[in-house]
Amino acid sequence: MKNGAIPDNINQLNAEERIEFLFNFLALEVLDMRDVSIIGVGTTPFSKHKERGIADLSLEAGRKAIEDAGIDKSKIEALYLGNYAAEALVGQGSLAAITGRNLGLGQIPCTRTEGACASAGIALRESFLTIAAGIYDVVIAVGAEQMSTCSTGVVTSVLAGAGDTTMDNIYGLTFPGFFGLVLRKHMEEFGTTRDQVSCVSVKNHHNGATNPIAYLKDEITVEGVNESRFIADPLTLYDCCPITDGAVAMVLCPSDMARDLCKKPVKVVGSGHAIGTTSILQMESFTTFPATLKAAEMAYQMAGVKPEDIDVVELHDCFTIAEIVDSEDLGLFEKGEGGPAVESGRTAVDGELPINPSGGLISRGHPVGATGLAQVYELVLQLKGEAANQVKNPELGLAHNLGGSGAVSTVHILSKDF
Amino acid sequence: MKNGAIPDNINQLNAEERIEFLFNFLALEVLDMRDVSIIGVGTTPFSKHKERGIADLSLEAGRKAIEDAGIDKSKIEALYLGNYAAEALVGQGSLAAITGRNLGLGQIPCTRTEGACASAGIALRESFLTIAAGIYDVVIAVGAEQMSTCSTGVVTSVLAGAGDTTMDNIYGLTFPGFFGLVLRKHMEEFGTTRDQVSCVSVKNHHNGATNPIAYLKDEITVEGVNESRFIADPLTLYDCCPITDGAVAMVLCPSDMARDLCKKPVKVVGSGHAIGTTSILQMESFTTFPATLKAAEMAYQMAGVKPEDIDVVELHDCFTIAEIVDSEDLGLFEKGEGGPAVESGRTAVDGELPINPSGGLISRGHPVGATGLAQVYELVLQLKGEAANQVKNPELGLAHNLGGSGAVSTVHILSKDF
Repeated sequence: MKNGAIPDNINQLNAEERIEFLFNFLALEVLDMRDVSIIGVGTTPFSKHKERGIADLSLEAGRKAIEDAGIDKSKIEALYLGNYAAEALVGQGSLAAITGRNLGLGQIPCTRTEGACASAGIALRESFLTIAAGIYDVVIAVGAEQMSTCSTGVVTSVLAGAGDTTMDNIYGLTFPGFFGLVLRKHMEEFGTTRDQVSCVSVKNHHNGATNPIAYLKDEITVEGVNESRFIADPLTLYDCCPITDGAVAMVLCPSDMARDLCKKPVKVVGSGHAIGTTSILQMESFTTFPATLKAAEMAYQMAGVKPEDIDVVELHDCFTIAEIVDSEDLGLFEKGEGGPAVESGRTAVDGELPINPSGGLISRGHPVGATGLAQVYELVLQLKGEAANQVKNPELGLAHNLGGSGAVSTVHILSKDF
Repeated sequence: MKNGAIPDNINQLNAEERIEFLFNFLALEVLDMRDVSIIGVGTTPFSKHKERGIADLSLEAGRKAIEDAGIDKSKIEALYLGNYAAEALVGQGSLAAITGRNLGLGQIPCTRTEGACASAGIALRESFLTIAAGIYDVVIAVGAEQMSTCSTGVVTSVLAGAGDTTMDNIYGLTFPGFFGLVLRKHMEEFGTTRDQVSCVSVKNHHNGATNPIAYLKDEITVEGVNESRFIADPLTLYDCCPITDGAVAMVLCPSDMARDLCKKPVKVVGSGHAIGTTSILQMESFTTFPATLKAAEMAYQMAGVKPEDIDVVELHDCFTIAEIVDSEDLGLFEKGEGGPAVESGRTAVDGELPINPSGGLISRGHPVGATGLAQVYELVLQLKGEAANQVKNPELGLAHNLGGSGAVSTVHILSKDF
């Protein structure tokens, strides 16, 4: 794809060389991807919606996104829906087709994508790729999960299925147990302190308290986190994201079209999707996730930006320690600097690099298959200057979604296009 | 995309018109999709693999497909894995990442696709589209399901989740119940007889008996089907596909590359994916599935062929009556002619239009998330002349995958490219 550069000696080329140049030059155009933008977003409140069905949640989010985009729904050519485990949690499969049908989208291809807790990040990526490559023009990405109708034990068991059940779960490992190990190792390797880790929870609860769609609205103190009951030593209750129901949707189209349709389109300038290790027996380190490293590298490279160019971040804080590890894996801080960064306020809404101004998974909640799009929803509001906890004039936002014990990750970089 | 035609008055165009023509002409090239071929296939035996894990099945199929393709696995750039409900059936999520990791494919994007029983058809379509559009060069499509470790009641309940649970299942409707209604209506509307329907089972058991990967190897008679116990009146035991475990995989790449890599590449010349109605309350008719009609229209149009051009068909006979309905929906027979066609032997391996020479879902078995690729596996063997029940010199094959109560369908048309 890089053959298309214009050579310095272009005027000295002979006829054959000119033809070769022309072919290469045109090939650059042929293979070049189209820019893609988000023109409308919608979400349900994140909460425990025990009285509703999951298809009702995905319908609400989808309707709001289409309304926000102001587009005739007959223009939508495909639907990708992120969902982790509706069959196991609420007995509902085929949610993509049901959502497409309920939204009145005609007979368009509707595909559910799953990659553990990164299911919605993958739905966004497939929407982005198919538009960028010219397969579709307008696509709706949806993410949904309903978890509160099951017991906590059932939810923990179903979530544990995102790990390699034959290799890890036979030892009784659950996700709180795994991230407890990560915290212990991070403390040992980098001197990260209990108070630093608690500061993630304090910050994210503080942000969530003023985010209208967040589930948890109570502030918490460092002492409150430290002294709450153990879930998986050393993780306490407030180190963990809550079981939540919710759905998010967004409409995407080529950026050229977006500028005509929308006053404030937000461009997807980078997209990465990678796997890492799927069993803890394969992990070389407990304090870094190779899937994040690779997905971030792909997204930064596509966007042509560096970590220091990012103005606002929504990352995958399924547990407090995950926010610290992720912020380091994304290159936002040096290894071991993630804890001090949050403690010193550098990642607060008014800090130098705001992380999870929405409240993150810890306070907004973590309806697993919706989270990847909930992060992007927040970034779209941030870039448009319409967020509840507005960061000052952000130009570039980064969304990081993580699945399993670091088994899969997506990273998307978004830019104002107005 | 149709702007690129050369105008009759091309020599009379002025300079401005010539530039406009050139742009349109080039745009045709820019948007044109690449041809895509299958260069390797692999499958597990279809059976009850109670002693194995689902990731072990997907690994076996993937390894065999890569070996068959003879390609260095480092060339594979993405994995799409069809699976319906591993979280609910065997407690395993994130199967795409686990399979990619186990196959040693590095950190490539791995995505599980789900669309009820059409999950693997969708995995094939996403693989096809992303190669056709130039996003990836080499992709592996996998489909897997393990069902036999659950009780029949649990499997029936999880499968019922492929319907709209809030609209249909509250009436106690299961899939055997639904297809029982379809059979009753087809008999009423078209005079289809019990014996005609039983002939589907007789033919498919006959074909499966000599297919080494098929699960059921016993022949059955019309009387045997008629007199077996009722599952959902009028459907009897032998009208239904069995609960089965299995996995299938295939490697795809651009056709130009395929011809260099492979002696007998099989080209994907048409692909369709569409939704229909997701609740029986929305259905205008019980004897036709609009998702099939639309997906078939898309695939025929892309391939530039008609139903009468097809030489061999693998279609979604989850129940005997489904084969008859599908064969009519695909345009292979007039409405009401599907029953007489099977009874008169027109769809036998040596008939004028062989349908399900593999034994179909009814005899090969129906590991839900693997079936769409199992159909294509059989067609690849047929087109290469290597099938157990070889059809005479087929040039074009059609695979039809159906999910839910006609909620979603994929259709793929395959052609010899050697």
